[in-house]
Amino acid sequence: MLVVMKAQAGPADIARVCERIETLGFQSHIIPGEQRTAVCITGNSGPVDPAEFEDLPGVAEAIRVSKAYKLVSRETQPENTIVLVNGVRVGGEQIVLCGGPCAIESREQILESARAVRAGGGQLLRGGAYKPRTSPYSFQGLGEGGLRYLAEAREETGLGIVTEAIDTETFDLVEQYADCVQIGARNMQNFSLLRRAGRSRKPILLKRGMSSTLEEFLMAAEYLLAEGNYQVILCERGVRTFADHTRNTLDLSVVPAVQGLSHLPIIVDPSHGTGKRDKVAPMSLAAIAAGASGLIVEVHPTPDRALSDGYQSLSPEQFAEMADECRAVAELLASRRKPRVGAH
Amino acid sequence: MLVVMKAQAGPADIARVCERIETLGFQSHIIPGEQRTAVCITGNSGPVDPAEFEDLPGVAEAIRVSKAYKLVSRETQPENTIVLVNGVRVGGEQIVLCGGPCAIESREQILESARAVRAGGGQLLRGGAYKPRTSPYSFQGLGEGGLRYLAEAREETGLGIVTEAIDTETFDLVEQYADCVQIGARNMQNFSLLRRAGRSRKPILLKRGMSSTLEEFLMAAEYLLAEGNYQVILCERGVRTFADHTRNTLDLSVVPAVQGLSHLPIIVDPSHGTGKRDKVAPMSLAAIAAGASGLIVEVHPTPDRALSDGYQSLSPEQFAEMADECRAVAELLASRRKPRVGAH
Amino acid sequence: MLVVMKAQAGPADIARVCERIETLGFQSHIIPGEQRTAVCITGNSGPVDPAEFEDLPGVAEAIRVSKAYKLVSRETQPENTIVLVNGVRVGGEQIVLCGGPCAIESREQILESARAVRAGGGQLLRGGAYKPRTSPYSFQGLGEGGLRYLAEAREETGLGIVTEAIDTETFDLVEQYADCVQIGARNMQNFSLLRRAGRSRKPILLKRGMSSTLEEFLMAAEYLLAEGNYQVILCERGVRTFADHTRNTLDLSVVPAVQGLSHLPIIVDPSHGTGKRDKVAPMSLAAIAAGASGLIVEVHPTPDRALSDGYQSLSPEQFAEMADECRAVAELLASRRKPRVGAH
Amino acid sequence: MLVVMKAQAGPADIARVCERIETLGFQSHIIPGEQRTAVCITGNSGPVDPAEFEDLPGVAEAIRVSKAYKLVSRETQPENTIVLVNGVRVGGEQIVLCGGPCAIESREQILESARAVRAGGGQLLRGGAYKPRTSPYSFQGLGEGGLRYLAEAREETGLGIVTEAIDTETFDLVEQYADCVQIGARNMQNFSLLRRAGRSRKPILLKRGMSSTLEEFLMAAEYLLAEGNYQVILCERGVRTFADHTRNTLDLSVVPAVQGLSHLPIIVDPSHGTGKRDKVAPMSLAAIAAGASGLIVEVHPTPDRALSDGYQSLSPEQFAEMADECRAVAELLASRRKPRVGAH
Repeated sequence: MLVVMKAQAGPADIARVCERIETLGFQSHIIPGEQRTAVCITGNSGPVDPAEFEDLPGVAEAIRVSKAYKLVSRETQPENTIVLVNGVRVGGEQIVLCGGPCAIESREQILESARAVRAGGGQLLRGGAYKPRTSPYSFQGLGEGGLRYLAEAREETGLGIVTEAIDTETFDLVEQYADCVQIGARNMQNFSLLRRAGRSRKPILLKRGMSSTLEEFLMAAEYLLAEGNYQVILCERGVRTFADHTRNTLDLSVVPAVQGLSHLPIIVDPSHGTGKRDKVAPMSLAAIAAGASGLIVEVHPTPDRALSDGYQSLSPEQFAEMADECRAVAELLASRRKPRVGAH
Repeated sequence: MLVVMKAQAGPADIARVCERIETLGFQSHIIPGEQRTAVCITGNSGPVDPAEFEDLPGVAEAIRVSKAYKLVSRETQPENTIVLVNGVRVGGEQIVLCGGPCAIESREQILESARAVRAGGGQLLRGGAYKPRTSPYSFQGLGEGGLRYLAEAREETGLGIVTEAIDTETFDLVEQYADCVQIGARNMQNFSLLRRAGRSRKPILLKRGMSSTLEEFLMAAEYLLAEGNYQVILCERGVRTFADHTRNTLDLSVVPAVQGLSHLPIIVDPSHGTGKRDKVAPMSLAAIAAGASGLIVEVHPTPDRALSDGYQSLSPEQFAEMADECRAVAELLASRRKPRVGAH
Repeated sequence: MLVVMKAQAGPADIARVCERIETLGFQSHIIPGEQRTAVCITGNSGPVDPAEFEDLPGVAEAIRVSKAYKLVSRETQPENTIVLVNGVRVGGEQIVLCGGPCAIESREQILESARAVRAGGGQLLRGGAYKPRTSPYSFQGLGEGGLRYLAEAREETGLGIVTEAIDTETFDLVEQYADCVQIGARNMQNFSLLRRAGRSRKPILLKRGMSSTLEEFLMAAEYLLAEGNYQVILCERGVRTFADHTRNTLDLSVVPAVQGLSHLPIIVDPSHGTGKRDKVAPMSLAAIAAGASGLIVEVHPTPDRALSDGYQSLSPEQFAEMADECRAVAELLASRRKPRVGAH
Repeated sequence: MLVVMKAQAGPADIARVCERIETLGFQSHIIPGEQRTAVCITGNSGPVDPAEFEDLPGVAEAIRVSKAYKLVSRETQPENTIVLVNGVRVGGEQIVLCGGPCAIESREQILESARAVRAGGGQLLRGGAYKPRTSPYSFQGLGEGGLRYLAEAREETGLGIVTEAIDTETFDLVEQYADCVQIGARNMQNFSLLRRAGRSRKPILLKRGMSSTLEEFLMAAEYLLAEGNYQVILCERGVRTFADHTRNTLDLSVVPAVQGLSHLPIIVDPSHGTGKRDKVAPMSLAAIAAGASGLIVEVHPTPDRALSDGYQSLSPEQFAEMADECRAVAELLASRRKPRVGAH
């Protein structure tokens, strides 16, 4: 249920609506809009009677929301959400490029990566200090030491930092250093981690699970918003199929599909999405042409010596060339169009 | 095995190599190149000894081909194949746009569609006269009547015609009218139909099967080339996965993958690939950005009244806008690049 | 639409109903039942008015059939169909075991296979004379020579013959020799071949396509029945998924699913379904326990020397042991139960 | 690397091997066998030199283990592992049946379920106190209250308790009450939770992830063993595919596949595996016939009034009938066979 306020409704009117919602045993979420405010109701198992609200002062109408997801839905918020990561606007008119190594291996490696990303025109730096690994015997990341190197790289280059939290235990630490906390594909339905991330004041980058439907993806994001964190970036990174010419099958159609249903920005990870270096540039361009708000790409100063995922990492030169082409395509399309659906 | 001739080798040298191949009980295929000719050997179940050929006059070297596919392989022919459809070059520097209805419903409908495609800058007209349908009770196409309407549309608009042959019985008829004969996804491994198409002198558009691996796709094309038809265009149209937000999952990564392994051109069908009208334009742009040589798109003068697949057909206006953007992206990328891999 | 006749309705009543159906431009299919006859209407694109029939003499009621498939539906025929293959009842109380090599390689090989199958208690012999092969350069089968060896094996052992037709060109020949004609997984939606098989007077074994949904599978069978061939056996042989520990993923849940929706018998192919010899026996037992009416299994006198699929073929000893266990499980379950759903 | 001790090697010999391993910076795991003990080395990123150990007293040989998984491998331990859950042997000659509701809804509901399971001959009781739910607004379980009801049900019926832990925060609590702690499919690669479960002294039931390969499944179990918990039961519960006639596609071939590669017992969940009540009994029988060590099945006193998953729950009568048939099939197969591979 969405209670839409009149344009002239004041804070007292809104407070009264919230009070009524809570009296009924539900939660209220205030959604500020350009013209007018809406209050979304969650926590109800069945339908709520619109008449409960339509007689309150300042209420324009009470609308039933038909989807399982509410707060992430465009029905609830028609305008695109812009997520601010260290001052960079994700979901706005400019595409955002985030680059860096799969795992942080050393101070030198992450600093060189950061310089390469900045030189190539990237705005954000990625790098894992905690790595979810299929084998218990594989390198699991440098932990807090890695986070400190990331902070040093930010200080030197000015790039915002995106890094993964793999559990609630290390979330606090990751949150202190990161400008945006990543929830990985394997954790997309780790609901306890989602709740913790939802209580964070840092933006969250949520990757689509390997066999996640679009609805499950949006419901995972709903967990974040339901806890109060509205700064959420979605990320397509490929799904599991029978096809064996790439590591995963990058499902770019989810980009326009998300944009139709949700106000949250969506970016694409062509590195995990293909698992092969020579497919990264073509699929990056394809992602931008499909309308993605940005890319998260693996870049390594010396890909052939990477401890993990080297075969899918770009060299600094390849990143710069790819980034350049992506910006050109994004600008071309922006220049030909009216502002994107719902954008302001 | 590939027998590569010296630059100065003459027809008699080549004939002698072919003779030796046939004496051994195999088939020979002459592959003319810019600099020099190669002769490909097929029909051998095990490896062939290079020494059988390296002493013949005019032979530069004899190379073992490592893949299951031979004639379609870039190892066999490094230059891109350009397929000529009614004078239109598919696989060259310009992208090619093929539009039209799923099924031919009437003379008026196909003529209007053709005018819309031409007005939008398309070069080829698609439309099914024979339709493979899941239900025996569904509309199965107008048959030869439909082919005649296509021919009339070509006469009026100058557009080349792409239409599907669904069996060997009707292939002769389809071949007479079509400028390019389509083999549909359900028939990608209908080997008898592939052999018949391989003996045709018309170009073939081969669609990827719904659960076809890249290797199976290339092997299906190999059937065509092995029978002597080298004018083959590949087409990605989406694969079957668990994802339910689109009718199929369009696997654009197959575009650069095919281009790495084969000299054949590949185009994309975003209409069947997504099954939803509002996803067609974004995925068309993505396909072109990924490097596809063209698109085959469903266009209907009045999509909402189409007998089949109306919900995934573009209106004439939508087609024109999409085509315009795709050409702009293709030109932008072409202008920034050296000629594409292997292109001349 | 299904027109159900009264118990006492005579041939003249039935003929009158068929005449009315044809006058309306549709096809009629007489479905004889134990108690009373029904007449199924196909060829109508929209709903038919029950009132057209309910006033005719001998008509009990006219029922709308809700599914896309009609003739294969249990709504149309509640009793299980029993298919007779060379005197063997498929779909009855006894399970049916069909064994033999993937491809017929020689007279000796198929005769030895047949003896092994008979010795192991099998009732039917399988073996391909025409093979659909991914590569144009692979062994494509012995053709009519192979069919003659099959006939000789039948003469010696008394086993009924199941062999595949891969196209309409060779269907006539295959039909002459076979007791049951197989349509392979790659041809499940080769609608021209289905129509030809539907006009055959031999039983058809229809394999599920590699990425076929249950509805598509039943609709493919509907093509056969719509042309007049009601002797159809369905066969699960594994579907394409991401799982890589078997060649395909055997989807045994389709066995009870088919039995709920259709009156046609369903058997299972654990050889192609797993692609690995050591998985064949466990999955055979599982198939029988799930309620399958039989198995079609690859048996080769010397699996390690088979020209194709040797790694998934059972030896004669393995077949005999597996067959024995399967019969024991089937008898155990039959003895504990009321007759199966719909069985008589 | 596996260091196999001589039959007469004593504790001091074994201790010396462990010491050498730890000196090299690796971990040692003592694997007691019937005849002789082995010591498995983990934590090495590259190969270890066998010569490091072969000169130590009591060492028979040092063997390189070829797979990514070590401790779960049959190469490391040829005999089947028997897991003891509240005195019930899982992985032994008798099949084990675990039944109960999806979620614990009330004291009465879980007590009635437990009585039904015991009446039907089940040995273990399942029921979720913490539920991972796709929607943040769905019922999330009764928490500790639910665990207390489970304990009460155990007291009354004597059934061992299997219940899920969804995060490290609630693991301690779940561990206190449970006889076996379940890790759900969505958490199969929640490596922090796996490490916590690996440090538990309670047996773990590990469910296969929805898009998990066999290798990933075994590697997830390896996390548990690597932390010291060798009491691990694997569970197949269906994977994500395009097939839409069941909620998931139950991949029974993984049962013999696991048994070939690992010594750990594997059971099957036909309720989540099919998502439809009428498929549960056939697939239960199929699982047992394929060799599964048991089943975990949803049973509800009044399925139609269940708060979650009611459509896939069996009634008490259906459970009893299914259990009876499964035991009969298991006994039949056991009576016909030599002991299973590796069993004692």
